[in-house]
Amino acid sequence: MIVQFSIVPLGVGTSLSEHVAKVIEIVNESGLPYKFHAMGTIVEGDWDEVMNLIKNCRDTLMEDLERILIDIRIDDRKGAKNRIEGKVVSVEKKVKRKIKK
Amino acid sequence: MIVQFSIVPLGVGTSLSEHVAKVIEIVNESGLPYKFHAMGTIVEGDWDEVMNLIKNCRDTLMEDLERILIDIRIDDRKGAKNRIEGKVVSVEKKVKRKIKK
Amino acid sequence: MIVQFSIVPLGVGTSLSEHVAKVIEIVNESGLPYKFHAMGTIVEGDWDEVMNLIKNCRDTLMEDLERILIDIRIDDRKGAKNRIEGKVVSVEKKVKRKIKK
Amino acid sequence: MIVQFSIVPLGVGTSLSEHVAKVIEIVNESGLPYKFHAMGTIVEGDWDEVMNLIKNCRDTLMEDLERILIDIRIDDRKGAKNRIEGKVVSVEKKVKRKIKK
Repeated sequence: MIVQFSIVPLGVGTSLSEHVAKVIEIVNESGLPYKFHAMGTIVEGDWDEVMNLIKNCRDTLMEDLERILIDIRIDDRKGAKNRIEGKVVSVEKKVKRKIKK
Repeated sequence: MIVQFSIVPLGVGTSLSEHVAKVIEIVNESGLPYKFHAMGTIVEGDWDEVMNLIKNCRDTLMEDLERILIDIRIDDRKGAKNRIEGKVVSVEKKVKRKIKK
Repeated sequence: MIVQFSIVPLGVGTSLSEHVAKVIEIVNESGLPYKFHAMGTIVEGDWDEVMNLIKNCRDTLMEDLERILIDIRIDDRKGAKNRIEGKVVSVEKKVKRKIKK
Repeated sequence: MIVQFSIVPLGVGTSLSEHVAKVIEIVNESGLPYKFHAMGTIVEGDWDEVMNLIKNCRDTLMEDLERILIDIRIDDRKGAKNRIEGKVVSVEKKVKRKIKK
């Protein structure tokens, strides 16, 4: 399945990038395929792989924080693989012009 | 932690209530505190309790479906309990008039 | 259409209820049907009614804040009305036991 | 402000790419900065620019469909610009290794 998640730490002011950087390092070390963008991180894996990764990110941030919000969006399609790129390619084929990705 | 989730089955037409009913039955049987509303289900529990519940809902729906979308929003606050009602009460105290809930 | 939204103010510490209370007062004054729960506010109206309401909430909070996050989920179904209660009733009819709402 | 949105058409089967392609074409024609990824589209602009764009996408899809779900996530920060790339760069500077984006 393909999953987008983002974690919002509360009580740390308006700049969150230091905490997001910690999350990205954990994602990077997981070995799962991922893509990082301005509104979250997309990862691909089975349920346990992805949820354990997000739990690991949450546990790490909660060591220093009192409250966090996590947003998770899952697209689960039987038998589908390599969808971080595949979903974009599938749409691109149906669009007449070159699109920004 | 307090968690809102919703599951959207694809490929079943425009009416989703039959599938949502299956989800609610599983939530009801879990024994976790919950509240069902028009845009999702709110449950409270620790990470493993809630995520195992959502995984159980997903596994059940995927028996008959090819693709589902799941949206999960987590509000994780150290030491906080009874927040399905508590968060609403906390806001109500700061509002001058009676609010609809 | 039926819309759930929530606004997260950043840079105000870990307690957000004072700011959420401001949002609820604005929603209450709008006259639109709404329901407030622990993870957001559900309102019903046409596109412009609902989006102007959310914009109004955002403008009010941004008077005092530097950064906010807003989450909006829309369920838009042609001709459907009274769905804040109607969607719940539609699921309830398909569930064998009494559910918590 | 920077906004991620995705539109899920219901009642069209399990493959959504044809409808997503329509959305991308409208986004592309809007002239707003955007980035398309596997879980949604990120655009940058002021409230009215972005919301009118999303409304335009919704109106176009609803010509042929009975029901759609729309998910919108807004990150609104006073005075911030060029954040589709800027937010990623800000995190990258705090991460020791090269990250995938």
